[in-house]
Amino acid sequence: MAGLFITFEGPDGAGKSTQVKKLADWLSASGIACRVTREPGGTPLADKIRQMLLDPANEAMVPKTEALLYAASRAQHVAEVIRPALQNGQVVICDRYTDASIAYQAVGLGLSPDMIRRWSEEATDGLWPDRTFLLDLPAELGMARIRERGGPDRIEGRGIEYHQRVRDTFLALAEREPERFIVLDSRQTIDELAERIRQEMKRLIGK
Amino acid sequence: MAGLFITFEGPDGAGKSTQVKKLADWLSASGIACRVTREPGGTPLADKIRQMLLDPANEAMVPKTEALLYAASRAQHVAEVIRPALQNGQVVICDRYTDASIAYQAVGLGLSPDMIRRWSEEATDGLWPDRTFLLDLPAELGMARIRERGGPDRIEGRGIEYHQRVRDTFLALAEREPERFIVLDSRQTIDELAERIRQEMKRLIGK
Repeated sequence: MAGLFITFEGPDGAGKSTQVKKLADWLSASGIACRVTREPGGTPLADKIRQMLLDPANEAMVPKTEALLYAASRAQHVAEVIRPALQNGQVVICDRYTDASIAYQAVGLGLSPDMIRRWSEEATDGLWPDRTFLLDLPAELGMARIRERGGPDRIEGRGIEYHQRVRDTFLALAEREPERFIVLDSRQTIDELAERIRQEMKRLIGK
Repeated sequence: MAGLFITFEGPDGAGKSTQVKKLADWLSASGIACRVTREPGGTPLADKIRQMLLDPANEAMVPKTEALLYAASRAQHVAEVIRPALQNGQVVICDRYTDASIAYQAVGLGLSPDMIRRWSEEATDGLWPDRTFLLDLPAELGMARIRERGGPDRIEGRGIEYHQRVRDTFLALAEREPERFIVLDSRQTIDELAERIRQEMKRLIGK
């Protein structure tokens, strides 16, 4: 039996990791095998690439290098972790995936969204999520939440206009694929969000 | 004035680094500004990617990850080093470039050569060498030379069939672009090879 591939997207500070954890706990309590992972990273090699991407010391990194490193990390992650888990019938819950590359690297850095999308397609042999939860949040709110929890990393440290364009792109991607995306307002409480996500998962698993 | 972009390709053990050095020394002695570099690597960030590619500990690396890491490294190298030097009118001499990716990653690992070629094109905004010296050598001779100088790295350690396919691909690439490639038999002496390379460079610079 094929598994289910679920991704969480949205700006930094939107509460993705909290919701990933709550969904995984609920699935496990319901006796459904799941595998939680994240991007960039997710394997020892992909984690090395993640460190490179997030290290503020790598300020000379040009946009295409950044986008190709994400694609390299994703190729490894899909081959080593995501596909094998799906083939075992597990629910794979991934914090960020191709949509994040399009929002952060393509539009945010002025690269062609079609090129970034194709690089990801080719890197993953065309693996797309069954469902993507977009935790939407106004850019200034996301940035305020990040400041509260400590200093920003190399990508978080970019200005408000960058994060605004990232948000707009996420919303545009969701509009383009309404059957895959579930857009949620992150200003709801943690429990309200978790309940909405569980409802959608019940529908999906029930199929 | 635009500079000249020269690459050296060929199997491991063919003597590329010796010839790169001899050409650079001759150019410098002739008063021609040149910049010597190599792939993978060539910038601090690209060198970190190089370490990842050559580290035998990264044996889990899948072919697409490898190919995308080369493309990422190349994007950085071209943007940070090669293009600025060419714009300064320098002769850039690079040990390995896109042809090596096609030979080693595409054909050697069973990936689509067209995809690898396109990734490099996109990574470099279409920068190709003005001239490529292919130091050709039978695969078994190259492997014997590598064994003589110490243990093989992660890529050198692949078997004879792999290195044979790599060699065949280099020769096929040269046949496809005879105006760019100069194919040289590496079984000649170091001085014979260097003289042949200087002759070609005189023709190029004289233009």
